[in-house]
Amino acid sequence: MDLKNFIRDIPDFPVKGIIFRDITPLLRNKEAFGEAVNRLCDAVKDLDFELVVAPEARGFILGSAIAYKLGKGFVPVRKPGKLPYKTVYEEYQLEYGVERLYVHEDAIERGQRVLIVDDVLATGGTAEALIRLVRKLGGEVAGLAFLIELSYLNPRKRLEGYELRTLIVY
Amino acid sequence: MDLKNFIRDIPDFPVKGIIFRDITPLLRNKEAFGEAVNRLCDAVKDLDFELVVAPEARGFILGSAIAYKLGKGFVPVRKPGKLPYKTVYEEYQLEYGVERLYVHEDAIERGQRVLIVDDVLATGGTAEALIRLVRKLGGEVAGLAFLIELSYLNPRKRLEGYELRTLIVY
Repeated sequence: MDLKNFIRDIPDFPVKGIIFRDITPLLRNKEAFGEAVNRLCDAVKDLDFELVVAPEARGFILGSAIAYKLGKGFVPVRKPGKLPYKTVYEEYQLEYGVERLYVHEDAIERGQRVLIVDDVLATGGTAEALIRLVRKLGGEVAGLAFLIELSYLNPRKRLEGYELRTLIVY
Repeated sequence: MDLKNFIRDIPDFPVKGIIFRDITPLLRNKEAFGEAVNRLCDAVKDLDFELVVAPEARGFILGSAIAYKLGKGFVPVRKPGKLPYKTVYEEYQLEYGVERLYVHEDAIERGQRVLIVDDVLATGGTAEALIRLVRKLGGEVAGLAFLIELSYLNPRKRLEGYELRTLIVY
């Protein structure tokens, strides 16, 4: 099954000049969704981790299913004002704008190994902020997994030295 | 396992007078998270549906894992400006404010049966909007499943006639 057939290209979203890779056709197809989760799980099976860490909101979709399938805990990373308990944050540069990402300060224990999951690896800026957030709490990044990699934005340059797994490359 | 032990009460979040039920301690505990997903799947096993429909953002976490486990497709319902393709929307009243929920117009086919999933059933206002959204596309609501039910807000009154499954009741 070629998962790329289930990704819909939307030009000029959210801003002019960006081609948005819409994963909703993949998600709504039970075979494609199951296959994507299974392949991501397979791609990280050599990595040792206890928690899946994923950013709001699309990261939750794949991160949660992977955590469930592999019997791991799930840690949501959220935008400002969403997490109710004490938090720490990191800032990052998007393709279009600046954002902060928050996590609960008790979400990761010192020395706990985590897998970072998101739907799209673009510039790597979000991924870098997630890595800093995990390390701020004393966690260790076992690796990062993404459904889609936009290789033309050169994200791997910024993530050298990390175990990086992606399924669909543009 | 008493899943309630993994829910953290946060008073006055997001506004004064609301007790927020924080599910992040449950999510990060692999046993509790796995158990919650398994029990929700078990609670809906008599229902006939093809798609899981869940609202941004916490609904994605449980909805996705349930869809994966049961071999169903997943349809994200999102806040304004997030979905890239053509959408339809419904408005709803929160405990605190008014919001719109959007779904892609091709997310559900006419006659497709769906399970609606979210983390917390509070007043039932979001659930009603989700039902209207599903029906607007010609879908049929096979049932609704929630991790938490705030029975003191009387949500069941607004959802009479629907198959409703909840795990943790306050």
